[in-house]
Amino acid sequence: MNPLRVVLVSPRNPLNIGAAARAMSNFGFMELRLVNPYEVAFREARSAVKAQQVLQAAREFPTLAEAVADCALVVGTTSKGHRALEHPLRRLELGGRLITKKLASMPVALLFGSEKFGLTNHDMSYCHWLMRIPSREEHGSMNLGQAVAVCLYEIIRNPAAAKAAPGLRRAAKAEDLDRLTTLLEEVLERSGYVHAGVEGSTSMKIRRLVRRMDLTAHDAEVWLGMLRQILWKLVS
Amino acid sequence: MNPLRVVLVSPRNPLNIGAAARAMSNFGFMELRLVNPYEVAFREARSAVKAQQVLQAAREFPTLAEAVADCALVVGTTSKGHRALEHPLRRLELGGRLITKKLASMPVALLFGSEKFGLTNHDMSYCHWLMRIPSREEHGSMNLGQAVAVCLYEIIRNPAAAKAAPGLRRAAKAEDLDRLTTLLEEVLERSGYVHAGVEGSTSMKIRRLVRRMDLTAHDAEVWLGMLRQILWKLVS
Repeated sequence: MNPLRVVLVSPRNPLNIGAAARAMSNFGFMELRLVNPYEVAFREARSAVKAQQVLQAAREFPTLAEAVADCALVVGTTSKGHRALEHPLRRLELGGRLITKKLASMPVALLFGSEKFGLTNHDMSYCHWLMRIPSREEHGSMNLGQAVAVCLYEIIRNPAAAKAAPGLRRAAKAEDLDRLTTLLEEVLERSGYVHAGVEGSTSMKIRRLVRRMDLTAHDAEVWLGMLRQILWKLVS
Repeated sequence: MNPLRVVLVSPRNPLNIGAAARAMSNFGFMELRLVNPYEVAFREARSAVKAQQVLQAAREFPTLAEAVADCALVVGTTSKGHRALEHPLRRLELGGRLITKKLASMPVALLFGSEKFGLTNHDMSYCHWLMRIPSREEHGSMNLGQAVAVCLYEIIRNPAAAKAAPGLRRAAKAEDLDRLTTLLEEVLERSGYVHAGVEGSTSMKIRRLVRRMDLTAHDAEVWLGMLRQILWKLVS
């Protein structure tokens, strides 16, 4: 479980609180903290079926200062690119990496503001720096639950997984491709698609066509079986 | 605008359709396609305030085959790690990169199944490969709107942005730090925190303390102003 504290400041909509908790559970985060939530919303969210464990363990704080008191790094999220010049602003790609690094040695809080207004300047004054999801600014802010999901994904994202794994698929061997080529040629002759006279160049075309199929060993077997059956029907 | 086609197969909940459209708009995707949506849900979603442009332009198809007919690559999403051995399964980190690459030369469709069941085996048989968001499998599937948001984020994600930018902050110059050190020492002497006898080692401690503050030029000015005022009050 990731020790990051996800802090929702003044959330108003129970669906969003539930969605944030669900994204946390999906990505392996347990520490949900709510600052001054709308009480009805928090109660309703708690009754949601998904992510119950996160919601049951969620802690409520009257002020942001108390919610982040045990954290050595406090990061605020914002949808605007130029809001608070007093604060270093980092894109999620970099911010997520810095948070992951810090988490190895100290508790970190990640703050999300209310649905309508985001974090206030007062909230931001508790932050060491701000982080922005690289969304289109014309569109306005993201949905709270989706913003939480995207930020947590970036934090658990594994850069090594972006490298293509050495192919696990077992490619067909040349001898199987040869058998397939011969069989296909025979089917095409028997069905009248090719004539004896043009066989030479057609043969090469078919050999290349079969290679371009990029078959696995298993699929080459399937094709051989299908063609054998077709051939049997053609000659019988 | 990104030309990727986001295809929702049999979506049932208007909030999810709206959330998917909003995530698309946030990240700059316009091509939403719905296969056999629950009509009431689609109608309700259309009346949502956010992402109207995406929803107005959304197209409806009776079958998946028709929805992806013009796409040269069809990728299905799944929450399960081992469902369909017949299909290559790629983690989002790699899958997103491959989709971005393909999009440069051909139309690509990204499929999301219904909230309850995900994509069926029949749906998956139209896919070239499957992609999995690396969430905890114990938890079960992700919320549809959040899954769309996370996948689209990975596709627009800029790996270069993860590298720390050369610091834009203008660090304080050594001469300012020296002025600050001298001023702080004087304040501490005047207020009785340090005594003339131990000045040598304390002076060095303060010099190091000030360097560890890692001040910007602007913040060094602010500190100088505050200390000057305090000193003025102490000697007056």
